[in-house]
Formats: sequence, C-alpha cells, structure tokens
Amino acid sequence: MVDAERAGRILDAANDLITHYGYDKTTIDDIARAAGISKGAVYLHFKGKEALFEALLLRESERVMDDMFARIEADPEGGTLFQVYSHALYAAISNPLIRALSTRDRRVLGDFARRFANMVSPQESMMFGREFIAHFQAAGLIRSDLSPETVTHLLVYMRYGFLMSENVLPPEHTPPIDEIVAAMADMLSKGLSPDGQGNSEAGKAIMRGYIAQIRAAIEERRQRINQAK
Amino acid sequence: MVDAERAGRILDAANDLITHYGYDKTTIDDIARAAGISKGAVYLHFKGKEALFEALLLRESERVMDDMFARIEADPEGGTLFQVYSHALYAAISNPLIRALSTRDRRVLGDFARRFANMVSPQESMMFGREFIAHFQAAGLIRSDLSPETVTHLLVYMRYGFLMSENVLPPEHTPPIDEIVAAMADMLSKGLSPDGQGNSEAGKAIMRGYIAQIRAAIEERRQRINQAK
Repeated sequence: MVDAERAGRILDAANDLITHYGYDKTTIDDIARAAGISKGAVYLHFKGKEALFEALLLRESERVMDDMFARIEADPEGGTLFQVYSHALYAAISNPLIRALSTRDRRVLGDFARRFANMVSPQESMMFGREFIAHFQAAGLIRSDLSPETVTHLLVYMRYGFLMSENVLPPEHTPPIDEIVAAMADMLSKGLSPDGQGNSEAGKAIMRGYIAQIRAAIEERRQRINQAK
Repeated sequence: MVDAERAGRILDAANDLITHYGYDKTTIDDIARAAGISKGAVYLHFKGKEALFEALLLRESERVMDDMFARIEADPEGGTLFQVYSHALYAAISNPLIRALSTRDRRVLGDFARRFANMVSPQESMMFGREFIAHFQAAGLIRSDLSPETVTHLLVYMRYGFLMSENVLPPEHTPPIDEIVAAMADMLSKGLSPDGQGNSEAGKAIMRGYIAQIRAAIEERRQRINQAK
C-alpha cells in the first residue's frame, strides 16, 4: 500500500468515526482499527489526533469545493451569483463533516469546537467577501447601487440563518431543503440582480479564478501540516 | 407613591442594572438601592429576582411592540410586509434588553439565558409565522407562488443572521445599520412581493389585528405573573 493510499484510508476511517461518534469519543486506536492498520502506522502519517483532524478538514473542504465547482459548471445559469450561492450551500450541507462545522455542531466537533471557532476554511475566507462581490458587480451580475459590504452582509445573514436555524426552528414545518434553497436563490436573484440575470459565463470565469486561488491556499495549508509533522 | 408607580421605578432600576452589569451580577439589594426604596418594598411587588426579570421582559416586549407599531403607522408604506419586517427589527435592536435577548447575549442574560431559551415573546410567536404570512399573501402583499412555510423560513434566516452575526462577523467592515436594514427590506420587497408593492393599508389593517392579539397575550402573561406572587 503506498503512502498516500494509506493516509487516505486513515482519513476515511476518521471521517466515519468522527461524524458518527464525535471528535471527543474517537481515539487513534479506534481509527487504526477501523482503517485495518496499526496505531504506529497512523503516527507515521499524523503526529496526533489534532493534526489528523486538521488534515481531514482540509481534505473535506477540498471535496466540498470540487463538488460546488462541478455543480456550477454543470448548470447553464451556474455563474450567476445566486446559483453560485445555492451550489455553495448545497455542497456544504451535503458533506457531513463540513455541515457539522458550518452549524457548529458540538456533538461532532467536541473539544475541537472552541479551537475551530477561529479557524476559517479557505473557501469561507475567499468567497462572498467584499472583493468577491465587487468582482461580480463589475461583471454586471449584481446590482451596483449597493455597497459590496452591504451585499456581503445580506448573504452572510442568509447563510448563517439557514445553517444555524436548525438549532432554533421547530423542525415539524420545515419545507424540503430543495424548496428553501430554490426560493432563496430566486429571492436573492430578484432582489440583488441588475435587470435580467446577467451573464452566467462571466460569473463562471470569475469562479474559475477563485477556485484556483482556493486550491493554492489549501495546498499551502497542507504543506504546513506536513512540515509540522 | 402609588403601587403601579413604585413597581415601574423598580423595573426601571432593574433594567438599567441588568443591561449594564448583567442578570447574574444584579441583586435585589442593588435594585432596591437604585430605586431608592427598601428591599422589603421590592418583595411587596415581586416574589423574587426571577419574577422581577420576567415582569421586566414583558414590559420591554410591550414597549418594543408599541415602538414597532408607531413606526408602522407613521410610514405610508408601513403596511407592506417588508416595512413591517424592518420596523420590527429596528424596534427590537433599539431596546437594550430585547436586543440582548434577541442576540442571546450571555453577558446580560447570565443564568437566565438557559431558562429563557424556551421562552418566546408573544410577538415572536405571533409574527412572521405561517398564518401571518398567509394573511399577507391573501391581501396581495406577498407572492403566493411560494408556500407560507418557505417565506417564514427565509424571513427567520435573515432575522437570525442579522441579529446573531455580531458574534461571527468582524465589525470593521460593517456598514451602518440603517443601510443594511434598508437594503434588506428592498431585497425582500423585490424578491418576495408580487408585482408592485401591494396595498400598504391592507397590511396595516392586518397588523392592527395582530397588535390587539399580542396585547391580549401580554396582558394574560402579566396576570399569570401577578397570581403567582
């Protein structure tokens, strides 16, 4: 078994265990057993549970980004800001670990939750910020009579409310997630687009640039984790 | 000094102390001193700190409702759903205690925060719920191609994100609150209104009905607190 393949198996096992039982209840022993290798072999790859978890978060972040990007590319209207936004949300909630992270799920994150509070994924720090919005405004994909800061805030509110309200809203009347996300994208589009949807291809071109930047940032973090080993 | 006047002074003192120092650090002694009366006199009105705090919350809720209602009545477009929504937000954040409650501010709420998690103000339980949205849809003030549940959820997301994001967004680039609330109302209006804004007067008529119901609910809770004394 080559190194990268074994590291991947360790991360797969950790991902299963942590999303099911939580970070606190998962030990290196459990992970080694589930991956079918020795505990010593786990330490060859990761200096401890925390480093392993960081590497896992990075891998899952990258998967979410790939998923988001594939959804955007496959969608003819995928380059409009509102489709980008929906695809980003779908991708985030479709991945159990990233979903737990986005909703600050203490059951999964455990002790790590506090440390993680100040940790932001490369996607989060680059997408839907002021500069990002300004790009979309310049490409005619978003109303330019609003300041980029204001648009950023409105988008963050929606995203935060959407992700966190599981904790506050009674679940019994929650419409299917597809219906909510579609209505959200439609509302944002009617509310924040200039007349007409704007040119989806221009948005996709912007997104490709960001994806490349995010990939580079993920790679850099991965190097840092490896050097710390 | 008549009874109601003295009760009012006690609540004023408690409001000042709690919003400044928090629920946990405020004692009945402090409140009596600030109100310029004896501790025994406080107990004539409230059986303890918790009952006093509940009475205070009720009074401040009613003030916020009066404030919201006055803003709606004074605004020619005040009956459209999006103006109702903005006025409700403005009124909530303008009152220090209700603002602390809406943002689950542990510094102010202290020990009471956990208990309060399951306590909902009469406004919150009656406004922007499914039935409320259905009324506004029937009056032509909101798109009827969306389900009331979906609209409710979108509005809750915005409100929750707006109130809670103080805790997660860096403050340095936050636009003035007026700019954000105006953009939010405008976005909601473009995104969720039927063609045109709809008839503001019809919305005001609906609101008057709700305000009467909320007032009755507040009065009922007040009676319950008094009976428990």
